[in-house]
Amino acid sequence: MSARLLDGQALAARMQQEIRPQVAEFTRRRGRPPGLAIVLVGQDPASEVYVGHKLKAGTEIGFRADLNRLPETATLDETLALVQRLNREEVYDGILVQSPLPKSMGAGAGITVFDAIDPSKDVDGLTAVNVGKLVQNRAALISCTPAGIIELLERERIPIAGQRAVVIGRSDIVGKPMALLLLQRDATVTICHSKTPNLAEVCREADILVAAVGRAAMVTTDFVKPGAVVIDVGVNRVSDRPTVELLYPKGHRRRAVFEKNGSLLVGDVHPAVAELASALTPVPGGVGPLTITMLMMNTLRAAHARVAR
Amino acid sequence: MSARLLDGQALAARMQQEIRPQVAEFTRRRGRPPGLAIVLVGQDPASEVYVGHKLKAGTEIGFRADLNRLPETATLDETLALVQRLNREEVYDGILVQSPLPKSMGAGAGITVFDAIDPSKDVDGLTAVNVGKLVQNRAALISCTPAGIIELLERERIPIAGQRAVVIGRSDIVGKPMALLLLQRDATVTICHSKTPNLAEVCREADILVAAVGRAAMVTTDFVKPGAVVIDVGVNRVSDRPTVELLYPKGHRRRAVFEKNGSLLVGDVHPAVAELASALTPVPGGVGPLTITMLMMNTLRAAHARVAR
Repeated sequence: MSARLLDGQALAARMQQEIRPQVAEFTRRRGRPPGLAIVLVGQDPASEVYVGHKLKAGTEIGFRADLNRLPETATLDETLALVQRLNREEVYDGILVQSPLPKSMGAGAGITVFDAIDPSKDVDGLTAVNVGKLVQNRAALISCTPAGIIELLERERIPIAGQRAVVIGRSDIVGKPMALLLLQRDATVTICHSKTPNLAEVCREADILVAAVGRAAMVTTDFVKPGAVVIDVGVNRVSDRPTVELLYPKGHRRRAVFEKNGSLLVGDVHPAVAELASALTPVPGGVGPLTITMLMMNTLRAAHARVAR
Repeated sequence: MSARLLDGQALAARMQQEIRPQVAEFTRRRGRPPGLAIVLVGQDPASEVYVGHKLKAGTEIGFRADLNRLPETATLDETLALVQRLNREEVYDGILVQSPLPKSMGAGAGITVFDAIDPSKDVDGLTAVNVGKLVQNRAALISCTPAGIIELLERERIPIAGQRAVVIGRSDIVGKPMALLLLQRDATVTICHSKTPNLAEVCREADILVAAVGRAAMVTTDFVKPGAVVIDVGVNRVSDRPTVELLYPKGHRRRAVFEKNGSLLVGDVHPAVAELASALTPVPGGVGPLTITMLMMNTLRAAHARVAR
């Protein structure tokens, strides 16, 4: 295996150490910690895990991090009312509504709820005004996953300017903001998606390849130019043995993890890409921990901006 | 010459015929025509020409189209006050602040003034909230030039989905919204810019190439894959004879235009590209007239949306 592993876990820990004294200083000056309110509607198991990580990280660093639960049966109006109450509460600098909302709430519910968040508290960077400011290179609060990837690339001294970057996936929360952030840093950026013909061929143009498709191990070696930097945003739970055995050779440590847990988190990038890429983010332990850390950075940033007003 | 010329002038005229009865119907129902307020600060000669075209087109179609002038010496505060007054005036459904603002107003003046426009009257699609909604595929008011190009491609039945599109230029008003609109229509989109190495090579990947760089005839034949569709957004005034003679062979009708006027409007695309492309927008008479027509479409759309509230 030739690729340097980009250790998001270690960087996240380092960044959290950097944030900690700033959080303490804010708390000392203001007589309260910076506050994050998380809204969780229903009991989606993956969401429970994510929210748990966010609360734990926040609390450990010194934030006030509160969970606001609504039942699976909550209406859109009830969810909006909760967001509006949190908008008004001075103790909260950031509000995060965990996706996805229950299907029963309707197709456009997510965007309606995000729109209700006060943009100055929008630590997920999902309100229209914050997305627009991102396009115009003047956003204060940027979607956490792409912001974390930029942080990782920059701290690992991976050049972006003048490079060809290919982003697979065009979601509002990862693909599109990722492309915009890479473009701002003078990469030549291509956005691919499910309707892209010859996807592997297009991806092979990339010096920096960001995979955000949500399909386990879909990005195989034929997607990757030798020496490319590959960022794996996918977190896919694989629970069938044949797939695991196909992905990892006998004796691989990840097989043991599978035996122990009965399932395995697998990224969008096939393990064999490690032989070809110059650098690669692992799953787990790559992009994920950075996303949570950027959420904390955004909350602190929002807190500073709010008290400065 | 092999490329089919995409006649923006003719399409613009056809679209204006389509809008006319809708404008008349609005006027009849509401007792007033849809209204467009244009703000022009200073006396930039190109701006005077553009504004003149917009006023003329608007009036001809049946809009109320008023010019609000401020002197070159106007302050940012005076400009903001004018915009805020226009926001409040019921007779105006659309507000357009002509770019560029005088340099004396400072670097960030443009964005500050655009931000002051009521998003429901933002017929240039430049406020942060409208740009954010464009990213999220739910914009009502979209930047006129890229919207006009999409209209042209669709009416000329040029396929977009599954095609590779390359946009040269990453401005807020053309390049970035153009890329987003092509992406929404399932193109695989690459954005190039001044820092892109091997620009010609990247552009040769394009099935649809959009040039928005602002440099006369920069996009030469080596930027173009044979059979590509080429959209020329550039409008560059060329007044030196050697350049004109280099671009157009002896006896070419454009040489006569140059002799008559002492200058020539030249696009970003070199005339020789017409031998190679399958379709091409001329300059003048391509994208320009569509931009103005889309401004009228946006004003009518804003008028309908405002009275529906």
